[in-house]
Amino acid sequence: MKVTVNVFLKNGVLDPAGKAVEHALGSLGFDGVNEVRIGKQIVLNLKDNINDADIKTMCEELLANTVIEDYEIIKG
Amino acid sequence: MKVTVNVFLKNGVLDPAGKAVEHALGSLGFDGVNEVRIGKQIVLNLKDNINDADIKTMCEELLANTVIEDYEIIKG
Repeated sequence: MKVTVNVFLKNGVLDPAGKAVEHALGSLGFDGVNEVRIGKQIVLNLKDNINDADIKTMCEELLANTVIEDYEIIKG
Repeated sequence: MKVTVNVFLKNGVLDPAGKAVEHALGSLGFDGVNEVRIGKQIVLNLKDNINDADIKTMCEELLANTVIEDYEIIKG
């Protein structure tokens, strides 16, 4: 079973990596870049005995820092 | 205009971060984890004057290391 977890900084949390990419794109000559936000995409290959509650626990306990990050779970 | 670029390691390229998460999930008691692969999700907020060729150039020149990474561009 394939499950994708996208982890990204909450709105309002400064994204230094995103800012760096923003400036780099500007210096490459792309002047149409308003903002860049960078997150993690975690692709899990799981046995079928793992249920939705388990996946949520994985996210809350390990995959995301829920103080500053949000996450979305996409199955399949 | 919102564009999402998912950057992930090519198949066959070792993913140490993914392996670390795999072992961590195991030690948390989740024994149904076959594999974990971690990539970057880059969300670009662009002006409408940026075209598809520009976005591809951004990926090839900066956002992805095309030697070991693949990327996909999702508009909207």
